[in-house]
Amino acid sequence: MKMVKVIGSVTSTIKDDCLKGVKLLFVQAVDIDLTERNDFYIAIDTVGLGEGELGLMVIGSTAKLTDITKGRNVDAALVAKVERIDLKNINHIV
Amino acid sequence: MKMVKVIGSVTSTIKDDCLKGVKLLFVQAVDIDLTERNDFYIAIDTVGLGEGELGLMVIGSTAKLTDITKGRNVDAALVAKVERIDLKNINHIV
Amino acid sequence: MKMVKVIGSVTSTIKDDCLKGVKLLFVQAVDIDLTERNDFYIAIDTVGLGEGELGLMVIGSTAKLTDITKGRNVDAALVAKVERIDLKNINHIV
Amino acid sequence: MKMVKVIGSVTSTIKDDCLKGVKLLFVQAVDIDLTERNDFYIAIDTVGLGEGELGLMVIGSTAKLTDITKGRNVDAALVAKVERIDLKNINHIV
Amino acid sequence: MKMVKVIGSVTSTIKDDCLKGVKLLFVQAVDIDLTERNDFYIAIDTVGLGEGELGLMVIGSTAKLTDITKGRNVDAALVAKVERIDLKNINHIV
Repeated sequence: MKMVKVIGSVTSTIKDDCLKGVKLLFVQAVDIDLTERNDFYIAIDTVGLGEGELGLMVIGSTAKLTDITKGRNVDAALVAKVERIDLKNINHIV
Repeated sequence: MKMVKVIGSVTSTIKDDCLKGVKLLFVQAVDIDLTERNDFYIAIDTVGLGEGELGLMVIGSTAKLTDITKGRNVDAALVAKVERIDLKNINHIV
Repeated sequence: MKMVKVIGSVTSTIKDDCLKGVKLLFVQAVDIDLTERNDFYIAIDTVGLGEGELGLMVIGSTAKLTDITKGRNVDAALVAKVERIDLKNINHIV
Repeated sequence: MKMVKVIGSVTSTIKDDCLKGVKLLFVQAVDIDLTERNDFYIAIDTVGLGEGELGLMVIGSTAKLTDITKGRNVDAALVAKVERIDLKNINHIV
Repeated sequence: MKMVKVIGSVTSTIKDDCLKGVKLLFVQAVDIDLTERNDFYIAIDTVGLGEGELGLMVIGSTAKLTDITKGRNVDAALVAKVERIDLKNINHIV
C-alpha cells in the first residue's frame, strides 16, 4: 500500500455505471516525513476520510476487493485511516 | 484512477480482433493544477470524451470491466468525465 | 496502451515452453511527437510489425488475451499497428 | 520481488475488515549496496521481520497468496527475510 | 518483458512456504546497449541462468505461469536466456 493524503474531490455525472454512488477523492502520495510527492490519484474512499487526513491506498485489481468497491471497475481504493506512524526515532500521531 | 486530458486519436486498421469497433484516444496525464505531464497513453473511451476534455482513466486488468471493454484486451479505459475538481482553496469547473 | 516503435529482435533458444514459436521484438516507447524515450521492452508481436514501425503495446495480464498469446506467460504484446495519429494541430501519417 | 528494509510501522483502527489483525509495516526500497531509495510502501509482514531487517516484498495481486494475506485486500506483502546477498565481488551477511 | 542481467543471488531460510526450493536471483535491468540501469529485482530463475548472463523477466501475475513458479507467490520470473540481439545497425551475440 501507499500512504496518501486527501487533498480534494472530483465530481463526475457522466461516468461508467460501476462508478455511480461512490465518492471520488483526490489524493497525493506522501513520504514518511509527510512531504508531499508530485504523484496524484483519484481513489474510492471506503473508510470515511476527510480532507487533509492520511490513508492507505491499494492499487490495481486489489482495489476491487472491499465491500464498497466489489464489482466496480476501480483501480485505487483507500482502505485504512493512518492514525499513528512509528519510525525509529520518531512517533507521529496524525 | 489517473486524471488525463484527451489530446487526439490514433487510427489503426491492422489490429487484434478485440480492438475492432472501439475508439482509440490519445491522452496525457495532468496534475491537479492541470499542468500537463510528459506521460502519454492510448485509452479506450467509454463515456464520449472530446478533445481537450478531462477524464478519469483506469489501467491494468480493471480496464476490461466496463460494458464497452468487456472481453477486449485493453489495459487503459476512460471511465468518467471530470466536470468539477474541489481542492482546499480552489474550485475548478472544467 | 503505450505507443512503441519496433527497433529490433531478440533470439532465445533456452526459454520457457510457453514462449516457443513466437517472435520476440525489441520495442522502445515514443512520445506523441515520436521522440524516443529511454524505456525498452521485449514484446510479442501479434500484428506483423516490421522494424521502425509504430504499434500499440498492452502490458500486464492483458497481454495474454490475444489469439497468439493465449496461455503464454508473456506480459507485453503488440496488438495494433499505428497508421495515423491525429493531434490538435498535427496529423501524422506514419 | 523488491528488496526492502523495515523502517517502522503504521497504526490504523479505522480500516477495511480485511486488514484487521495484520501488522502494517513501513518499508523502504534499498539498492544492492543497501543504499536507501526514496521509495516507501506499507506492507503486510508474513515472516516476522523486525525494524532494520531486510526482506523481499511482492506487490500486486501476488501479495494476496500467502497463508496470512489470503482473502485480504492487500497489494504488498513481505514474503522472505534476506539473510545473505552474494554479488560478484561481495558477500553480505545481513 | 524486460531484459535483465544476473548479478548475484539472495539466501533466505525464513520465508513463505511457496518460496521453498526455488533459486532467488538478483537481477539488474539493462538498456539495449547493455548499459546497467539503477533498477534491481529479485527473480525466480526458470531457465538456468548464470551470473553475468542476460535473460528476459516477466513481472506481475504472469510470473506465476511457468512450470517452476506455478502456485508460488512470486511476482518476477526469468523465462528466457537472451542469446542474440539484432538492432538496426548492430548484432550482439551475447
